[in-house]
Amino acid sequence: MNVNGKATRSIWLEPNGWSVGVIDQTALPHRLLTARLTTLDEAAHAIRAMVIRGAPLIGATAAYGVALAVREDASDESLERAYAVLLATRPTAINLKWALDEMMAAVRNRPRAERNAAAYRRAAEICEEDIAINTGIGRSGLPLIEALAARKKPRECVNVLTHCNAGWLAAVDIGTATAPIYMAHDHGIPIHVFADETRPRNQGASLTAWELGQHGVPHTLIADNTGGHLMQHGLVDVVIVGTDRVTANGDVCNKIGTYLKALAARDNNVPFYVALPSPTIDFAVADGVAEIPIEQRAADEVATVTGRTAEGRIETVRIAPDGTSVANYGFDVTPARLVTGLITERGVIAASRAALAGAFPKRAGAAK
Amino acid sequence: MNVNGKATRSIWLEPNGWSVGVIDQTALPHRLLTARLTTLDEAAHAIRAMVIRGAPLIGATAAYGVALAVREDASDESLERAYAVLLATRPTAINLKWALDEMMAAVRNRPRAERNAAAYRRAAEICEEDIAINTGIGRSGLPLIEALAARKKPRECVNVLTHCNAGWLAAVDIGTATAPIYMAHDHGIPIHVFADETRPRNQGASLTAWELGQHGVPHTLIADNTGGHLMQHGLVDVVIVGTDRVTANGDVCNKIGTYLKALAARDNNVPFYVALPSPTIDFAVADGVAEIPIEQRAADEVATVTGRTAEGRIETVRIAPDGTSVANYGFDVTPARLVTGLITERGVIAASRAALAGAFPKRAGAAK
Repeated sequence: MNVNGKATRSIWLEPNGWSVGVIDQTALPHRLLTARLTTLDEAAHAIRAMVIRGAPLIGATAAYGVALAVREDASDESLERAYAVLLATRPTAINLKWALDEMMAAVRNRPRAERNAAAYRRAAEICEEDIAINTGIGRSGLPLIEALAARKKPRECVNVLTHCNAGWLAAVDIGTATAPIYMAHDHGIPIHVFADETRPRNQGASLTAWELGQHGVPHTLIADNTGGHLMQHGLVDVVIVGTDRVTANGDVCNKIGTYLKALAARDNNVPFYVALPSPTIDFAVADGVAEIPIEQRAADEVATVTGRTAEGRIETVRIAPDGTSVANYGFDVTPARLVTGLITERGVIAASRAALAGAFPKRAGAAK
Repeated sequence: MNVNGKATRSIWLEPNGWSVGVIDQTALPHRLLTARLTTLDEAAHAIRAMVIRGAPLIGATAAYGVALAVREDASDESLERAYAVLLATRPTAINLKWALDEMMAAVRNRPRAERNAAAYRRAAEICEEDIAINTGIGRSGLPLIEALAARKKPRECVNVLTHCNAGWLAAVDIGTATAPIYMAHDHGIPIHVFADETRPRNQGASLTAWELGQHGVPHTLIADNTGGHLMQHGLVDVVIVGTDRVTANGDVCNKIGTYLKALAARDNNVPFYVALPSPTIDFAVADGVAEIPIEQRAADEVATVTGRTAEGRIETVRIAPDGTSVANYGFDVTPARLVTGLITERGVIAASRAALAGAFPKRAGAAK
């Protein structure tokens, strides 16, 4: 989508044909910096340190991480090491494993001399597939927005609430939760987004507000505590969030706090949709609450906040007393019963085993 | 409660017998500073700028604000001006109006020569009544904690989740939501508190974590997004929050985000209690969602965060892109149907019109 009026992606192959460029998302919204990934370890670090984040972009970066490893050493050992190193970077998003499995399938059964080219080809395809999938999600979700717009008075906005960043910065381009939003906006439908700031890492404040602003989509930043109040007062027409993993049953793992918004949506009859690219489905898992490992992250993410001072310095400030004990869970699981529908590249489907298996029979079958 | 091992209150009459000392809560948790209030305008500023906050403490400070005004000028005009100025400082907490009405009743019908002494006497009584009420809330709530503790294995903690700060810093001493917690802790019952950080102003991180730490109560700071996940996984035995206003029907107005925690508690069969000192009941209002005015505060509270740098400076950092539009609602309303019980100084009662009127017939009758 647009940055300073120019179409931009979150990840790209550099002109030399082998190194990988990414937007350094830790510097946003205050500075637009890029990082260059030249080795497996740099790719793994970028995922681990959240230079890049978002389930689809983690998958795309891991794919290029395998390509960077194969470029240096095309042996089976190198390939297996790359798989293991990258898989260990983040525990929750399933796209990571999906992308690594795709890369293994594309590379392993080839002679060593062909592996480098095959790896870069498959990584590039994974990026293009992400964009195609997100375009599909946009097409599937657009009628939902159009239907809400049809009930509005002229010039009245459709109000969407979203949590965290499931925008183009979380993907290669377009984004998942934002796909119907950008498409509606580009079609001239008046749309406005309430963006949860999304503590502790503030991806809503630093990334969602930034990318919506760059593309010109009207939006309002809110504290994570606010969504329930807005829904009680009829200020939200629909909730659309992304996801890091959807189980075979339709349970939705996403950024911590998503479950609370789903409860508020249900309590106020606000539709709650999850934008779901098919690589994010984990047919091997059924009960999300019981089975998905939830990443626990560093205490400092909660006890401190990083931002820009009035003088323009980037500073980290502590908000809690020294030595305070902190729990920092990265994700939660929204049970399928709270999900109005899953917006996939193959249409809007129910959050149920039957609907998921029906829409994606090949992937469902492969998991058996 | 204890600060550096010494019993401390949040507000006190200074040794000169007329000026008022308060803990400057904007400096916590990094510095323990006090502020001196010598005029009506200083008292009003302290409430408006949240040097002091918390429904009961707002009431106590407003009471002394009237006394400071009467000390300078004991006329009816001065009294009425003090009432109007103080009432306008914060719109949501009902204790403010309650305390001002109490002060008017104590002062207005007296000769001018007696007004100064009467005002200081009633303000001091309001502070002592707050402590007596909170002690009563502690006694009412203690059996709830004891019952939860009885189901635990030896040395296992009762886990309480609380939102914002309804501790002694929000009152004169002891606190409301914290009253049963401190009492249980002081009785040797193993108890542990999950403290929501409570964006945007972080009163959980800066005040609740600080006061629990000073008194030695084990606690863990969490992002506001986290409570639902903890409850899904059986890590919370009970939620206890404070309130800024409870309607005649039992609807609970409290810090923004309380409603989301009440929904999560209901979805996971976790009891959700509200600690309610009787001055916080507003028998003149029935439907909390429809009728209670919700304060909207400055955008900067969401777009920026203040804390202490590694070098010890207090800095304010911006977390959102420049110019981002912000909505900042201070409170929300939790419908009575989500409240397991109200912990009052007269026992634990249902969040219903009948129970409230039954427990506080005089106040209910006066509102008719």
